[in-house]
Amino acid sequence: MKSFYGDLRVGILGGGQLGRMLIQEAISYNTNIRVLDPDPDAPSKNLCDKFVAGSLTDFDTVYNFGKQTDLLTIEIEKVNVDALQQLEDEGVLVYPQPRIIRLIQDKGLQKEFFKQNDIPTSPFQLIASKEALKSAAIPFPFIQKLRKDGYDGRGVYKVKSKADLETAFDAPSIVEEWVDFEKEIAVIVARNEKGDIKTFPCVEMEFNAEANLVEFLISPSTLPVEVLKQADQLAIQIAEALKIIGVLAVEMFLTKDGHLLVNELAPRPHNSGHHSIEGNLTSQFEQHLRAIFNLPLGDTTAIGHAVMINLLGEKGYEGLAEYEGIEELLKQPRTYVHLYGKKFTKPFRKMGHVTIVDDNREEAIAKARWAQKTIRVKV
Amino acid sequence: MKSFYGDLRVGILGGGQLGRMLIQEAISYNTNIRVLDPDPDAPSKNLCDKFVAGSLTDFDTVYNFGKQTDLLTIEIEKVNVDALQQLEDEGVLVYPQPRIIRLIQDKGLQKEFFKQNDIPTSPFQLIASKEALKSAAIPFPFIQKLRKDGYDGRGVYKVKSKADLETAFDAPSIVEEWVDFEKEIAVIVARNEKGDIKTFPCVEMEFNAEANLVEFLISPSTLPVEVLKQADQLAIQIAEALKIIGVLAVEMFLTKDGHLLVNELAPRPHNSGHHSIEGNLTSQFEQHLRAIFNLPLGDTTAIGHAVMINLLGEKGYEGLAEYEGIEELLKQPRTYVHLYGKKFTKPFRKMGHVTIVDDNREEAIAKARWAQKTIRVKV
Repeated sequence: MKSFYGDLRVGILGGGQLGRMLIQEAISYNTNIRVLDPDPDAPSKNLCDKFVAGSLTDFDTVYNFGKQTDLLTIEIEKVNVDALQQLEDEGVLVYPQPRIIRLIQDKGLQKEFFKQNDIPTSPFQLIASKEALKSAAIPFPFIQKLRKDGYDGRGVYKVKSKADLETAFDAPSIVEEWVDFEKEIAVIVARNEKGDIKTFPCVEMEFNAEANLVEFLISPSTLPVEVLKQADQLAIQIAEALKIIGVLAVEMFLTKDGHLLVNELAPRPHNSGHHSIEGNLTSQFEQHLRAIFNLPLGDTTAIGHAVMINLLGEKGYEGLAEYEGIEELLKQPRTYVHLYGKKFTKPFRKMGHVTIVDDNREEAIAKARWAQKTIRVKV
Repeated sequence: MKSFYGDLRVGILGGGQLGRMLIQEAISYNTNIRVLDPDPDAPSKNLCDKFVAGSLTDFDTVYNFGKQTDLLTIEIEKVNVDALQQLEDEGVLVYPQPRIIRLIQDKGLQKEFFKQNDIPTSPFQLIASKEALKSAAIPFPFIQKLRKDGYDGRGVYKVKSKADLETAFDAPSIVEEWVDFEKEIAVIVARNEKGDIKTFPCVEMEFNAEANLVEFLISPSTLPVEVLKQADQLAIQIAEALKIIGVLAVEMFLTKDGHLLVNELAPRPHNSGHHSIEGNLTSQFEQHLRAIFNLPLGDTTAIGHAVMINLLGEKGYEGLAEYEGIEELLKQPRTYVHLYGKKFTKPFRKMGHVTIVDDNREEAIAKARWAQKTIRVKV
């Protein structure tokens, strides 16, 4: 590689905000990047060496795009894995590896993987159809999740009573006990080809119940040290079992009786790591690049208490996005606004995020609550 | 502005590393950016909405480019100011303002400006030609600087004896007393249209004598507080006198007898501010964007002791760049490598920079010295 990463043709499947922030970091590495995304106006479109508008799920499109690259990575799991497998067989580096993307695309396989590897997870059953769900006679309430294509809160259904069964998904799904959890937490872990592994400090998440999206993220978690240690070890255990190359977000529940249950994996930079851009010595995006380039992994130490809020499209507004309150935010020190370059807003669309860093946790949270009230995406 | 800065067509004159790092920050502001640069492979080429290859000094090229923008800024002073003046007259926002670029392009006018505004600067004479220089009979040693087009150490000549007069510049120049200085320091100051002003903490610079380029930059300076206060006040005084919009780098000498002399101005992000990306709460690039967008200026507090080293093309090597030692550097915590996306190296070409942050100043300096020995740009 003559000019560090300049001669390596790197492809990203997906050119949304994650691809965009990955590119923002990749600029410092001289990386030659091309992007495939179905949206001809994708946020990464004008920030790469080559942009291809095309389907991420079509074999030929992904294969032909991948053939023009030396190293392929993803910012979304919903991609054609058969094409990735073929590319890997033909010598293209595909990180995370296709077998891992295939596993994670299917929540049923994910659950089986947890079981086989003694990773604590909430009890589950695999269900083939609505008919099968009805005859399984599972005690209410429970959660039905589509095995495939659930994303950003879609594909999850809470079944509270027999009546809800009628509108349940009629597709392969998993059914989980309703976990009465105390907190949802996440650990981002990175692994390179040499096998070096590094975790980010555990974070706590608060959800917008209506949109089922992370609304509020606090880093680092101040849960008891034994919980944090276990969360960290679980993330490492999973990364090692998968032998993943790249970053992996491990979402976990802390139950009211103090147990950790692994909920879901995302084999890529993740919403629960956005605070790391200003809140940690190395960001998740730079860490992903270091991991896929087989470079030494960066120090993930938290710089301070960081709170990240997602900037979601306001309910009731759809159209050309207008941002209210950003100037107010920019008056505050250590308040970092990231917009994702999306022209159109719609309810709950992720339009950007804001990270607040403070030496005091309560201050950081108070400022984030104020920021959340102050900033609005309307039309 | 419907989508924050997304609807504003921002143009940058120059697409080198400064433009590139400005774009890297502008991504978070949804800014629509177009770049003009004579090099069809300029570092910013593939990171903007539109790239135009063309001369920065040709009236028509700059004018036509500028007519497609709402706001124009620069990353280099050597641009066609008449075109910028015309654009400003026709309603394009040009920041920094053309009259300031015109002043700063000419070191003679800069010196006159310092004199008129009681800004301390080393004594000087304006010289029209080599003949005039010879007849001026100035005591040796002295420094001759071309009034125009000096850049990165070019256009500066030390006249030590009568013999040196023969090879002196035969062009309008300024002649300065040889200042026996203790240290070279710089303050970056930003001002927006509202008139808000903010300075960055003063930095100390060490030069590569051979290349006359900054080799080593230490932030913040630990000079006596009264010196730092005066340096800060001088930067503010100059920004106010100019009524500049954007960032301005103010380079100063501290003489051996403890006086500050302003040496030179640069009305744009500057090499002496690169450390601010990781070393301060707001970077000079974000600050420049905030200033030209008339947004609240960011907090410039230093995060720790930061040392920046320029990554210069190794002497004796010219061709496709190859980087040695980067992996060694990336093993160190708080060591940040920035490459500028330049394919070809030549002796002393600025290929990138490295910033090291540490809580301890001596540690930061020691690590930077080690980094400087470890990293090499060859072919």
